[in-house]
Amino acid sequence: MTDMLPDTANPADLPSPTEVKTAPVGVGGARPASRIERDLLGAAEIPAGALWGIHTMRALENFPISGTPIGTFGELVQGLVTVKQAAARANHTLGYLDAGRANAIDAACNAILRDTRYCDQFVVDAMQGGAGTSTNMNANEVIANVALGLMGEKPGTYALIHPNDHVNMAQSTNDVYPTALRLGMLLAVEPLLASLARLENAFDAKAQAFSEILKVGRTQLRDAVPMTLGQEFHAFRTTIQTEIRSLKQHATAFEQVNLGGTAIGTGLNTDPRYTHAVMAELRGLSGRPMVSAPDLIEATSDVGAFVLFSGVLKRLALKLSKIASDLRLLSSGPRAGLGEIVLPPVQAGSSIMPGKVNPVIPEAVNQVAYLVAGHDLTITMCADGGQLQLNPFEPMIGYCLFSSLKILRAAVDTLTTRCVSGISADGSRCQYLSELNIGIITALVPVLGYDTCSAVARRALVENRKVTDLIIEENLLSSDRLAELLRPDALTRPNIGREAG
Amino acid sequence: MTDMLPDTANPADLPSPTEVKTAPVGVGGARPASRIERDLLGAAEIPAGALWGIHTMRALENFPISGTPIGTFGELVQGLVTVKQAAARANHTLGYLDAGRANAIDAACNAILRDTRYCDQFVVDAMQGGAGTSTNMNANEVIANVALGLMGEKPGTYALIHPNDHVNMAQSTNDVYPTALRLGMLLAVEPLLASLARLENAFDAKAQAFSEILKVGRTQLRDAVPMTLGQEFHAFRTTIQTEIRSLKQHATAFEQVNLGGTAIGTGLNTDPRYTHAVMAELRGLSGRPMVSAPDLIEATSDVGAFVLFSGVLKRLALKLSKIASDLRLLSSGPRAGLGEIVLPPVQAGSSIMPGKVNPVIPEAVNQVAYLVAGHDLTITMCADGGQLQLNPFEPMIGYCLFSSLKILRAAVDTLTTRCVSGISADGSRCQYLSELNIGIITALVPVLGYDTCSAVARRALVENRKVTDLIIEENLLSSDRLAELLRPDALTRPNIGREAG
Amino acid sequence: MTDMLPDTANPADLPSPTEVKTAPVGVGGARPASRIERDLLGAAEIPAGALWGIHTMRALENFPISGTPIGTFGELVQGLVTVKQAAARANHTLGYLDAGRANAIDAACNAILRDTRYCDQFVVDAMQGGAGTSTNMNANEVIANVALGLMGEKPGTYALIHPNDHVNMAQSTNDVYPTALRLGMLLAVEPLLASLARLENAFDAKAQAFSEILKVGRTQLRDAVPMTLGQEFHAFRTTIQTEIRSLKQHATAFEQVNLGGTAIGTGLNTDPRYTHAVMAELRGLSGRPMVSAPDLIEATSDVGAFVLFSGVLKRLALKLSKIASDLRLLSSGPRAGLGEIVLPPVQAGSSIMPGKVNPVIPEAVNQVAYLVAGHDLTITMCADGGQLQLNPFEPMIGYCLFSSLKILRAAVDTLTTRCVSGISADGSRCQYLSELNIGIITALVPVLGYDTCSAVARRALVENRKVTDLIIEENLLSSDRLAELLRPDALTRPNIGREAG
Amino acid sequence: MTDMLPDTANPADLPSPTEVKTAPVGVGGARPASRIERDLLGAAEIPAGALWGIHTMRALENFPISGTPIGTFGELVQGLVTVKQAAARANHTLGYLDAGRANAIDAACNAILRDTRYCDQFVVDAMQGGAGTSTNMNANEVIANVALGLMGEKPGTYALIHPNDHVNMAQSTNDVYPTALRLGMLLAVEPLLASLARLENAFDAKAQAFSEILKVGRTQLRDAVPMTLGQEFHAFRTTIQTEIRSLKQHATAFEQVNLGGTAIGTGLNTDPRYTHAVMAELRGLSGRPMVSAPDLIEATSDVGAFVLFSGVLKRLALKLSKIASDLRLLSSGPRAGLGEIVLPPVQAGSSIMPGKVNPVIPEAVNQVAYLVAGHDLTITMCADGGQLQLNPFEPMIGYCLFSSLKILRAAVDTLTTRCVSGISADGSRCQYLSELNIGIITALVPVLGYDTCSAVARRALVENRKVTDLIIEENLLSSDRLAELLRPDALTRPNIGREAG
Repeated sequence: MTDMLPDTANPADLPSPTEVKTAPVGVGGARPASRIERDLLGAAEIPAGALWGIHTMRALENFPISGTPIGTFGELVQGLVTVKQAAARANHTLGYLDAGRANAIDAACNAILRDTRYCDQFVVDAMQGGAGTSTNMNANEVIANVALGLMGEKPGTYALIHPNDHVNMAQSTNDVYPTALRLGMLLAVEPLLASLARLENAFDAKAQAFSEILKVGRTQLRDAVPMTLGQEFHAFRTTIQTEIRSLKQHATAFEQVNLGGTAIGTGLNTDPRYTHAVMAELRGLSGRPMVSAPDLIEATSDVGAFVLFSGVLKRLALKLSKIASDLRLLSSGPRAGLGEIVLPPVQAGSSIMPGKVNPVIPEAVNQVAYLVAGHDLTITMCADGGQLQLNPFEPMIGYCLFSSLKILRAAVDTLTTRCVSGISADGSRCQYLSELNIGIITALVPVLGYDTCSAVARRALVENRKVTDLIIEENLLSSDRLAELLRPDALTRPNIGREAG
Repeated sequence: MTDMLPDTANPADLPSPTEVKTAPVGVGGARPASRIERDLLGAAEIPAGALWGIHTMRALENFPISGTPIGTFGELVQGLVTVKQAAARANHTLGYLDAGRANAIDAACNAILRDTRYCDQFVVDAMQGGAGTSTNMNANEVIANVALGLMGEKPGTYALIHPNDHVNMAQSTNDVYPTALRLGMLLAVEPLLASLARLENAFDAKAQAFSEILKVGRTQLRDAVPMTLGQEFHAFRTTIQTEIRSLKQHATAFEQVNLGGTAIGTGLNTDPRYTHAVMAELRGLSGRPMVSAPDLIEATSDVGAFVLFSGVLKRLALKLSKIASDLRLLSSGPRAGLGEIVLPPVQAGSSIMPGKVNPVIPEAVNQVAYLVAGHDLTITMCADGGQLQLNPFEPMIGYCLFSSLKILRAAVDTLTTRCVSGISADGSRCQYLSELNIGIITALVPVLGYDTCSAVARRALVENRKVTDLIIEENLLSSDRLAELLRPDALTRPNIGREAG
Repeated sequence: MTDMLPDTANPADLPSPTEVKTAPVGVGGARPASRIERDLLGAAEIPAGALWGIHTMRALENFPISGTPIGTFGELVQGLVTVKQAAARANHTLGYLDAGRANAIDAACNAILRDTRYCDQFVVDAMQGGAGTSTNMNANEVIANVALGLMGEKPGTYALIHPNDHVNMAQSTNDVYPTALRLGMLLAVEPLLASLARLENAFDAKAQAFSEILKVGRTQLRDAVPMTLGQEFHAFRTTIQTEIRSLKQHATAFEQVNLGGTAIGTGLNTDPRYTHAVMAELRGLSGRPMVSAPDLIEATSDVGAFVLFSGVLKRLALKLSKIASDLRLLSSGPRAGLGEIVLPPVQAGSSIMPGKVNPVIPEAVNQVAYLVAGHDLTITMCADGGQLQLNPFEPMIGYCLFSSLKILRAAVDTLTTRCVSGISADGSRCQYLSELNIGIITALVPVLGYDTCSAVARRALVENRKVTDLIIEENLLSSDRLAELLRPDALTRPNIGREAG
Repeated sequence: MTDMLPDTANPADLPSPTEVKTAPVGVGGARPASRIERDLLGAAEIPAGALWGIHTMRALENFPISGTPIGTFGELVQGLVTVKQAAARANHTLGYLDAGRANAIDAACNAILRDTRYCDQFVVDAMQGGAGTSTNMNANEVIANVALGLMGEKPGTYALIHPNDHVNMAQSTNDVYPTALRLGMLLAVEPLLASLARLENAFDAKAQAFSEILKVGRTQLRDAVPMTLGQEFHAFRTTIQTEIRSLKQHATAFEQVNLGGTAIGTGLNTDPRYTHAVMAELRGLSGRPMVSAPDLIEATSDVGAFVLFSGVLKRLALKLSKIASDLRLLSSGPRAGLGEIVLPPVQAGSSIMPGKVNPVIPEAVNQVAYLVAGHDLTITMCADGGQLQLNPFEPMIGYCLFSSLKILRAAVDTLTTRCVSGISADGSRCQYLSELNIGIITALVPVLGYDTCSAVARRALVENRKVTDLIIEENLLSSDRLAELLRPDALTRPNIGREAG
């Protein structure tokens, strides 16, 4: 199949995305070399440099909502173009699309995939009605015009390469768009996974560096039994590790798509061999084990994969938020807080107080997490709005998920590089608080008994004394024996001997 | 009007709610003295002691969902019965309901309003389809049967007093139910307001008791400038005060109702004088300035008043949650936390560590707040589901709001009596941390200049010294002058003199 | 191990749960045979019939919040008791608990697991502070007193069997409670799965029954291409099937627990062999492949499994809600709606309009779904509140999940039995609308061409004619050929022949 | 006061915002004319054209999160600059800031307020940690450098005009930022109000145009009693009207600010006259009745005003969503739906089906509403994260509210101009369905009695006949009498005569 594809197409023949980028995408401007296109509403003038056409222009007029064009989400663009490329190849193989057009479309897709500057041609607003039709048509039009450019033709010469008849052949927005969203998700999750792996490593390094520092464990914000600071950071590492696994596992749900179902999943107006053929191409192009959903009708209206993945992102967000809150708590002070760790200063904290430094990076992480949770709610409501054979609210679902992926990645990166990597421990503070901690007596219960320990604990609290001092003072244990019992490695793991057995 | 109503009705004639209470409300049981009722689906056997009828029974069969009967929410029952009473009086006045029936219905309503045991007859599940029809019919049937009892008749003798023809006369579920919900809200908010007033007082008492205790103010969990513990508790008082005002103000939105609109707000099959008449009765019975919505069609489908009130409850919940979190933080320790205040112990905290006491009351408050926020989301989705002339999801809206009001009140009460009232300050800890606080130097900037202060602050941090010691040591200020500048009343309010001017 | 356990214990020796049930659980009542218990706050009177003790009583006083005792959630009780039983067995095996006490505790656990009436002794409010301590102590006290009863001793004779020293041996609330919650979830999901299987079957039956009924497919509420009503119901079946698989798969996350970690996951004051031993017992008793979390410190504070499972329940809820909304839409009318299906009437719909019947069952399903979504938000906020070595808000997480499981199951059951099973199709209405549908012309595009079809479509819309009539009238196709092209089996699957190739 | 302000400052002296706009805002680039600035972290190179300084640069490095700079929200910039201007004037009046500096700062603020191109200098990411410190410092630096430019000095000559010492004099981020957010909200709500007023008018026009069109009212998606299409659109108008009032009323909460409280609300290091003076200036500059919060400590950490306003925006969003859903339902079809209204076509709906047009504008409105609801949840979680004397998450609260205001406005505008204004009624369809409607018989109940009507209704349903035909056929009413009873004006309002009385 691949041999029919002109990977040798000369980039010089392509409409330059750079020029395109500087072309105004505003509508209705009277530019000299603009062209006229027509749809069921009539004719409209398309700006000279635009590779998109009249359907995109209608969408620009209809949805001036967020100011965020779909091209912001490069992975969505890649997903769309990959679907179009797979369809063109399948249509050629099955004999519905001639080699000339197929090759041109294929080359155009390659060009767009290679050069991210074409993202600037994907201009429709990410917040749009129409269940993704405008996004699909934007893709169809850009691909057609890039293909025409490759053939040396002007944009808009659709008799040669038509956005609908050729680029969209055997497709409907209703199978293309959900498939492209899923491909986009599979792509967009990758850099997040890489960022999380770096964060995991950063926590691991700290877990090792702090493995000897004994500190107070705290439950319900109350002093509890001892642990090491290394164990605390190891728990952060573990929880991130779990999320990496969870993300990988759940992303595989996006490998099941409804491509070939056309308008409502019945596959009307496709060749019975089409779905099989286009899926094979999709697997080849994406390098992913993409499969057809077992019930294309259900798959066409269902957005369950997005809902669950949003839940997975929300869980990641909540874990990051918990970690961020813990880092803020543990570094609180410097004098009147817990003060067990020191976050690296990254900016001045106050114009009023000399030297105040705030935990600004973890604070950003918390906020990003809360926006991800908000997006999850938006997706919930979008999912609830599915009706009969389609859910018209997938564009907002896509916006929320791509945005969440993007800000999560950014938050993880800044957390790793500007906070976690630079954290240092205040070992003497940890030790000081550990020695003050009444809860340490818990470890002596097996030796001294619960009642004796209770009496010592009470006296320590009332007299504001250290538990260890009282034990020596009351001759309950020798200082050697006490030191042995309170060795960090005894305090921070199962510690009851077999003699009891 | 009132003179026609037999307030002298002998309670002895009433069907005893006590007997009724012990009567099985389960369905389908073959009891000897049960009765047969009919609806469009056929005949069914109603248990002997039941004051409700066949429509209620259908609902019991259809909605075995939550196990929470509507009678759990006494204020909703009161709202329903009050609407029925107002309608009966208006219908009599306008000549549509004869005196005998009107009086009987009126007396039945009085009986139910007087004796909360009748709530046990409001048995339909709070989570129900049908837009409240089952709730409305449950009320119609109970009122009819209580009225029949007053007349010495058996339950089910509907030829005399009919649930639909007489009790529900000139009404539709679609105007009765939303009106009853609103009346119920107006009633249910009152005890919450009383509870909040007690909490406000408790915070006020602590604000006064702690007014002389200087402590570290903290922003972003970092030591900031000084304040008094009294100021901190005064802020809690202020914020509760604001919520009391907000609740009172926003509850007034429930005084606008759609009673008289019947099925869709057009008032079909009512007398043009009816709405005016029934609203006058409603005002008289409720003691509230109830008014008709200006557009009854809009008012019939609109649930905006519930949505906004839920937002008001959520804000209250969030403020309580913030206070609870602050109390947990401030009392953290006892040794390795902030430890500025001590919460009264109310139960043992741990089976492992002798003497550990946890902030269990604030923790309960946080959790209640989060459920209220969850209910707000549920209400949001219910509101979004309104279609055309009705929102069928008002029963869940009612469930969520009544539940939120109930648990908020309970949380506020336990917070007041079992936590706030018993809070004590650890004055010496506050003083100790205040003296350590480097941020205190901010108050010396106007005298010593920013640069000198910065140098002192830096030395304090690096050498782990007190700012005040360094100032004396460096002869920057006399100890008298320093003491004067660091008087609590100078540190905790605008402090720059006019000499600068 | 099992041979040491007196499964022959005579139930007659047990404290009767029936008597217990009628005993007042209110606090502070001066009853003759009450007993006195003591804790760190002092002494308190425990009502005569109560099998719970002073720690439970403190919780009753502290948390009069929701009125829903933990015993409402039978699966949680089972989870707690199973953990206690496993611990008793492990402690005996390791030599820390003598045979007499171990046997008594074991028999008590068996008794409680066998007789659901003991749930009435689990009285602490489901909404509680303290991270589950009160729930754990309620279990410890009830088990101790039931064990004492088995030994012929009075409640409160804790020298023999102590709630903490023996029942709670080697445990902390912080490992017991999260483990019990997970066991409870594993149990509670089972009946939901069974209910979903019945719903899946009901949809499958309808899918088959309606497989020949051609109808209009709709996207974005606009007439689209044809499908069969059977395909529509088959999609409902598919989506439920997917949820069953998803629930089963995600529930397995609850098989990983932190039992053995004690207070903060370090396993302080346990024998190094304990975790291994207690997990083996837990597997045996539960029949589930329970495993230890790889990082017990992380596992002690982490609530990720609950967060994700809540997301899974929310997705199920949203799918049920989508189905419910579709059923309401498809059955809308009877005259001025879509009217393609008829839901079985289950109760009268209106007191004003004779014969109006409403889709009350689907409406209940929507509302339940929205409460589940609300619970998901509550869980989200609870999860965000975890701090350092513990999340104190697990009780609310448990309340929300158990509630969601319960109402989802109830909603699914009523949907299956009172709605889906009785749905009939209005075949003639489906046919009538299919023939009117302009969208049907899409299937003729491959034969007649896009332009001809567009012209016919336009004429059909403007002249309010049927597409098929116009095609015959314009001699575009013979009626035989037309009938063949519009055969349902051609319209509802891939339909383009190889001739195109 | 005003006379001291050089409103005559020659714009030609200003650093050109145009040049500035084209200057790269990226960090670290080695440009020839860049300058060096210093903070506690050391020195850094500031790009040549930048009017912001080192604190802004640190924020750019720390928070590469969303890609949305704060300058996107012009109203926030205006709020910030207005606060700075008010402070400069107050500081001059009180004698703390000399006339030269005060005039320069004042003129700089005027310049920025006048020319929106300066927004490009407000470059810090809208999603940031630090509680708004970076935003405040961005403003301080830009104002200082613009002022320096006015004085003919180079950017960075801070000895003359210092961002902290002079522009931020007597201020803290903790009082400036919350105040600026509130001013920004007051500004940003205005265009939304104007857009809503246009939508209200559009609905009003349709209400009048459709006032004679009788149609089926629907409750729970079931045919109910009649109404006019005008009444339906009038309800839309009413509900928008209510929201306009609600927005106006609730926005007034933003008039209460904490300016003058400095770091934690105690007003440390301010002159006791300062708060009074700066508030007077703020009133003058903003033209709003700004007042001081009664408890500045509470006001400094409280975000209740934002939480409630978000609830108000959510209610508006839900009403818009309900309207959008109704418009989609009412226009469903064209053949197999309700089809009572026709939305103006604004773009092609499908590449597969000729002529399909979708309700894309209402669909966009639904989605915007759901994002607003998501933002409300984000704000909820941010609000819950307030700790002690500050809420560090106000930047995300601001992002969500400004975004919600912006997309709501855009959605309302496109709904008004591209949908509502062009809606037409399908009068004959409305009439056709009205005549089919069995529910119409409700209006005959007062004349024919409930039983007769029930019989007719049943026969109509079973025989698929019109109610009116059967009434004539059965000689129940003359056709004249029938026509009179079924006059639209009788059917759509209270209709029962006084004869009953």
